[in-house]
Amino acid sequence: MRIEPNIIQQFNKQEAAKHRNQFEFVAEELDREGFDVEVLIQKLTDFQVAIPSWALGLGGTRFGRFSLGGAPENLDQKIEDIGLLHALTNTAGAISLHIPWDIPTDPEATKSLATSLGIAFDAVNSNTFQDQPGQKHSYKNGSLCNVHETIRAQAIAHSVEVIAYGKMLGSKSITVWLADGANFPGQHNLQKALMHTEASLQEIYSHLPPDWRMFIEYKPYEPNFYSTVIPDWGTALMLAEACGDRALALVDLGHHLPNTNIEQIVATLMMRGRLGGFHFNDSKYGDDDLTCGSIKPYQLFLIFKELVYGMENNIANNPPLAWMIDASHNIKDPLEDLIQSLEAIQIAYARALCVDFNKLEQAQHTSDVTLCQEILQNAFRRDIRPILREARLRAGAALSPLSIYRSMEIRKMLIAERGSKTIATGL
Amino acid sequence: MRIEPNIIQQFNKQEAAKHRNQFEFVAEELDREGFDVEVLIQKLTDFQVAIPSWALGLGGTRFGRFSLGGAPENLDQKIEDIGLLHALTNTAGAISLHIPWDIPTDPEATKSLATSLGIAFDAVNSNTFQDQPGQKHSYKNGSLCNVHETIRAQAIAHSVEVIAYGKMLGSKSITVWLADGANFPGQHNLQKALMHTEASLQEIYSHLPPDWRMFIEYKPYEPNFYSTVIPDWGTALMLAEACGDRALALVDLGHHLPNTNIEQIVATLMMRGRLGGFHFNDSKYGDDDLTCGSIKPYQLFLIFKELVYGMENNIANNPPLAWMIDASHNIKDPLEDLIQSLEAIQIAYARALCVDFNKLEQAQHTSDVTLCQEILQNAFRRDIRPILREARLRAGAALSPLSIYRSMEIRKMLIAERGSKTIATGL
Amino acid sequence: MRIEPNIIQQFNKQEAAKHRNQFEFVAEELDREGFDVEVLIQKLTDFQVAIPSWALGLGGTRFGRFSLGGAPENLDQKIEDIGLLHALTNTAGAISLHIPWDIPTDPEATKSLATSLGIAFDAVNSNTFQDQPGQKHSYKNGSLCNVHETIRAQAIAHSVEVIAYGKMLGSKSITVWLADGANFPGQHNLQKALMHTEASLQEIYSHLPPDWRMFIEYKPYEPNFYSTVIPDWGTALMLAEACGDRALALVDLGHHLPNTNIEQIVATLMMRGRLGGFHFNDSKYGDDDLTCGSIKPYQLFLIFKELVYGMENNIANNPPLAWMIDASHNIKDPLEDLIQSLEAIQIAYARALCVDFNKLEQAQHTSDVTLCQEILQNAFRRDIRPILREARLRAGAALSPLSIYRSMEIRKMLIAERGSKTIATGL
Amino acid sequence: MRIEPNIIQQFNKQEAAKHRNQFEFVAEELDREGFDVEVLIQKLTDFQVAIPSWALGLGGTRFGRFSLGGAPENLDQKIEDIGLLHALTNTAGAISLHIPWDIPTDPEATKSLATSLGIAFDAVNSNTFQDQPGQKHSYKNGSLCNVHETIRAQAIAHSVEVIAYGKMLGSKSITVWLADGANFPGQHNLQKALMHTEASLQEIYSHLPPDWRMFIEYKPYEPNFYSTVIPDWGTALMLAEACGDRALALVDLGHHLPNTNIEQIVATLMMRGRLGGFHFNDSKYGDDDLTCGSIKPYQLFLIFKELVYGMENNIANNPPLAWMIDASHNIKDPLEDLIQSLEAIQIAYARALCVDFNKLEQAQHTSDVTLCQEILQNAFRRDIRPILREARLRAGAALSPLSIYRSMEIRKMLIAERGSKTIATGL
Repeated sequence: MRIEPNIIQQFNKQEAAKHRNQFEFVAEELDREGFDVEVLIQKLTDFQVAIPSWALGLGGTRFGRFSLGGAPENLDQKIEDIGLLHALTNTAGAISLHIPWDIPTDPEATKSLATSLGIAFDAVNSNTFQDQPGQKHSYKNGSLCNVHETIRAQAIAHSVEVIAYGKMLGSKSITVWLADGANFPGQHNLQKALMHTEASLQEIYSHLPPDWRMFIEYKPYEPNFYSTVIPDWGTALMLAEACGDRALALVDLGHHLPNTNIEQIVATLMMRGRLGGFHFNDSKYGDDDLTCGSIKPYQLFLIFKELVYGMENNIANNPPLAWMIDASHNIKDPLEDLIQSLEAIQIAYARALCVDFNKLEQAQHTSDVTLCQEILQNAFRRDIRPILREARLRAGAALSPLSIYRSMEIRKMLIAERGSKTIATGL
Repeated sequence: MRIEPNIIQQFNKQEAAKHRNQFEFVAEELDREGFDVEVLIQKLTDFQVAIPSWALGLGGTRFGRFSLGGAPENLDQKIEDIGLLHALTNTAGAISLHIPWDIPTDPEATKSLATSLGIAFDAVNSNTFQDQPGQKHSYKNGSLCNVHETIRAQAIAHSVEVIAYGKMLGSKSITVWLADGANFPGQHNLQKALMHTEASLQEIYSHLPPDWRMFIEYKPYEPNFYSTVIPDWGTALMLAEACGDRALALVDLGHHLPNTNIEQIVATLMMRGRLGGFHFNDSKYGDDDLTCGSIKPYQLFLIFKELVYGMENNIANNPPLAWMIDASHNIKDPLEDLIQSLEAIQIAYARALCVDFNKLEQAQHTSDVTLCQEILQNAFRRDIRPILREARLRAGAALSPLSIYRSMEIRKMLIAERGSKTIATGL
Repeated sequence: MRIEPNIIQQFNKQEAAKHRNQFEFVAEELDREGFDVEVLIQKLTDFQVAIPSWALGLGGTRFGRFSLGGAPENLDQKIEDIGLLHALTNTAGAISLHIPWDIPTDPEATKSLATSLGIAFDAVNSNTFQDQPGQKHSYKNGSLCNVHETIRAQAIAHSVEVIAYGKMLGSKSITVWLADGANFPGQHNLQKALMHTEASLQEIYSHLPPDWRMFIEYKPYEPNFYSTVIPDWGTALMLAEACGDRALALVDLGHHLPNTNIEQIVATLMMRGRLGGFHFNDSKYGDDDLTCGSIKPYQLFLIFKELVYGMENNIANNPPLAWMIDASHNIKDPLEDLIQSLEAIQIAYARALCVDFNKLEQAQHTSDVTLCQEILQNAFRRDIRPILREARLRAGAALSPLSIYRSMEIRKMLIAERGSKTIATGL
Repeated sequence: MRIEPNIIQQFNKQEAAKHRNQFEFVAEELDREGFDVEVLIQKLTDFQVAIPSWALGLGGTRFGRFSLGGAPENLDQKIEDIGLLHALTNTAGAISLHIPWDIPTDPEATKSLATSLGIAFDAVNSNTFQDQPGQKHSYKNGSLCNVHETIRAQAIAHSVEVIAYGKMLGSKSITVWLADGANFPGQHNLQKALMHTEASLQEIYSHLPPDWRMFIEYKPYEPNFYSTVIPDWGTALMLAEACGDRALALVDLGHHLPNTNIEQIVATLMMRGRLGGFHFNDSKYGDDDLTCGSIKPYQLFLIFKELVYGMENNIANNPPLAWMIDASHNIKDPLEDLIQSLEAIQIAYARALCVDFNKLEQAQHTSDVTLCQEILQNAFRRDIRPILREARLRAGAALSPLSIYRSMEIRKMLIAERGSKTIATGL
């Protein structure tokens, strides 16, 4: 299903007066503080986040999974779901595919569907953490890090195949996340596992089309619980540098040990020109994959502060970043959850754009720590939502995406269309 | 030094028009959403946070300490500093004393000074984590948990003395924080250490005046790094219940293991009627004692959400709570730091007061998780600062406390008055 | 399949001389230090650990699962597997059932099979974290904590049914682990969720046969990632006390926040007479469910030190403890993994039995911290394995269980018997 | 004071027979498993750990410090204390100086004293985390990372001076640990702080004598509690590579976030040839600086397993490592504590030397995870202490260092010699 623009506009009309009032109030405040509201709106309008193809059905944990209904059962339905999100938010203008869950059967038709919905194809994702039916060698003991050359070769060949599918659709990057690791001390020769991984990544990199980039994702634990071959940003950076200029580290917000200062990692990687992209989610304990901004919104803001600073002071020539949500929706309607994530991301971005970096630099230069804090908190405590709404309004999207989603009873319609027992491929 | 009310009013006048505009905008929004702004302002006006007497000088770490100047060198100067904070914020209307650092030499004069500044005497704090000159037995191997009865008796006697000082000044509660613990496995008989602690607390409790309460503070580690006799809320609750009705647990925000859900502890303790009070600060790693709200403002809001709910649905008859800041100021001017803490606390409280609990309960009843999140985020994303400013304005305090503090160059005046090498007792 | 005693004895013979030499050396050392080796052997012989019925097949993570073959497909096969373990180790003399995965179709036959293998029926486990086919209400939004009385009633009825199955087989206890919790702030009314849980547990407790005990298990997170209704030992204790004397807390080693001092929790619960039992496993990050002793063997020893002390100084009349392994085997052969877990548990227990508690108490009394540490480390650094082997040898079990398991090619035989595609119910 | 060799020999005689018996038993076992006991003993004999000059007095925490007596008050007394340790253990053959706490007044005399006690001069340590009397610029806002060039220059000059002192005494390396960091978001421009640090380190490196190495130490937090300029091994490696071949990362066991896999960091750094050295201690929560091996002895063994493997398979030509204890002794006699640390380090090293790496590699090659675990656990569960004792015996040191230390009442003698109120410089 699709949402026709005029329906959104009808809904918007009901809130138009209230919004106008709020927007003008905030715009005036920002203007007084020296921010160019038009520039701000343009940046928010341009900011697009990819939706992963596996996040459109209800996810689960190792303890089980509950059902919802209306889940997309093939790639085209997934693209349609993202089309709904994009129509409502004007922020979800890309999809990130996962192979083999999303192998396109008719690439041209799929591309044309996506184009009609304003959806681009972001990074493609490989999967060497599960065995597929008919697969020759098992990844039980690792893929790119495996002690056996034949198994590494199989995993490399899979990645090359993933690139081929990506090329068909217009992707320009591949994300490599490895579940490879050890559950027990002694299981891995830690040095050799890393050397094998490096060599495998170099091999994949050699197959990368010249206009592509390769993102190397790190994660300290899960599904392996003693060690992981790429546990942290330091390892990811080391591997990226061993591959070449177009290999970059990818940061997933949930892939860190307790108390990690993620924004500092972002700053360091940008200083080196090696930050490739982001997997957004939120967490309290580990890789909880919760809705963005639902647990630590200030951290999200601080991360965006580094991103905005890094993009505007791009000394190391860091390439444009790939933005993606990577959350799991175990209890909420996935589309509602994604709407909330997109909103939280845009809020964090907008607040970061309203940091007065000149004033901040002066305060840092005089070691005026109190003032440094005031500047950030002022940017964070302001109600920035009216600016976001204005950006959506101007782009033909919804003033209140969630409200329209519910008023239109979209989930009900999806269930009517697809059935209540559908299961989306994914986790 | 004191700040005369008319000076504050002069400063306020400069911002009056701008404030009026902001306040009216926010008040109208709140009104439309069904909140009574006058009630809100009254609650914020009534909300008072105690300042600990040891937080008025620059603190340090085990690696050292830097200097600032103008630190208060006696109890009266400490009260004067808090008087400055209270004049500016109308939120710092109490002091929490630490014995033996703040033994009053002339209790009546001290009381009268405090009264003249609108400062009440909150909980008194004992110190059995350091040895004082001339002290008979050392607390090196523990105080209330000590294997030796004579040492426990000394520590109990100290606590009784602390109560006596508190009575002189009008305090109504004592906070017992124990550094007691073990650095190494085997050092303590864990069961006996806890039993001794329980018996010691019962003994102190037996000396508690009938209108007093005893707060038992927990902490998992530091300054002992293997075990602590009261490591968590469960132990604090157990001990409180073993003492009597007027013994309650005290929560210090920095005294938890990584990833602890503190707001849930608050909810549980209130459900049992056993939450005594709070030590506010913020932290990223451990008991970092940073400015409130500087690291995890959303967590602070969620905690206040539980507090507001608990106070308004007080089934277990939890007594009124004691609020105190317990931060350390290693690099910022302590008074500036405290102004920022007070502001962050008031913001969190005000936002929590603007949670629509009826709507939330309905959403919880229908397991509408998306909506539950929306309700909280709506309360948090709103700019509530104009309401706080209005509350301060009406109480004769400053629209912008930090701005006045700086414009008046108060630190400079304190240094002129007290010297640049002064050292405040404390950590 | 079964292992005939004479086969084990044949294997043992090959190692007999070497073992004799090692045993005599260690026994002499222990004797010289004042330990009664015969008593030690008897205690190790008596020590039996229950195997959970769901731990006999390969487990998985949310990212997938790999296969092994030969997994038991029904309750009788599960009991046979445990029979193998018990024959080899003389330590696995009990099974812990999970309902509905292990509903006995012919209870008498099942009992008789178990008896013939020396297997007792330990605690039965309820499951309200998954929906079963045909189940009227979903547990998606909680079971015993649910806002709706009908859903709570269904979960209570399930628990009562679990007790009924347990009674058929001779169990004397039920373990309640609740996945109930919230993924997002606001989702739960934290106070009410806890009150509902308390009332539900009281209701279940009222159905407990007089010679039964109820174990309440806590866990801070997973599968819910914001809050859990029974997050910690303090809550478990509170709930147990609200139910009655035969309600006790159960400790799973993996269910704690980072850096928790678990042995102190054990000591505290025993001091209160409220420690019901243990779920053994090991972990580096969270509820990793790794082989016992594979990551933190010293912690396991320290926990056993508290257990041994508590059992020998049972002031609060803590009932005998229920011991169970609760690990997941994602990559190792489950039976091999369990043999390693049983060995690690017995080693920790044996070492704890060799702590000189009298000497330790004296050292504690003089605050001789260095000596306290020496005493524990001496008990831990000694090679205690020959004593374990002797205990097994005397009981007719294997000197080297793993070695026999491999020499006999038991997994191969199980695959031949059951097939290579079998899947055991469980996680 | 010094311990005469013949006194040690007298004590040793009393235990000689018992030791002989134990040694022969273990040596025979190791021999049977294919280990060359003589080689083992030689390696243990050669293994020397530096004692930091600041670890010889009682340390403290920010909450205070207790006293002991007999602490060394100057550099020569510190060297004498280490001489005592070395005479007893034959493992403490080096000292690591801290400038300005240990500026030698008569370098030749100091060198000659050290030589006479068999003590070498290991890495020298700079201090830019405290302000010294008369220092021109304060390090309150950072040293090598400071926004102001003059302050960075002062810190660089200090480091150059530290190298000069080291040269006088025969050191060949400098360890740079920076407390530099931020307590609050916004305080630092994270990119610039890192760039300044890099440039400063390069400047120091340019002053390094050609036969010297520079160690860069990382730490995630404390004394700064938001960010640290060199928070992790990735940053340390990046900076080392930016300086030159003789710049290496230094690992302090307590400087990691919760749950970090430290042994993997060791493996990775050795694979890159960039591991410079170690600061040994132990911890449960953070940088607790407890006695080595007192909390996580298995982790210490796993780390040594990587070190032994890396040294024996030195593909990247990693230079020889600098070993140092960096613990704080808040309650135990520092010399006793150090004896326990040295013992624990040697045990871990000896156990790691008894890992059968060939067998392990085969097991890894067949993904026999169970066997991999068995191999490590077998090495760890064995009682290796008799081998250590034999190594000490042959070197003229004590069979039981702690026992002799106590029998001789050395602390009493030190107090008699130096007084009971002495305070050692340090933390």
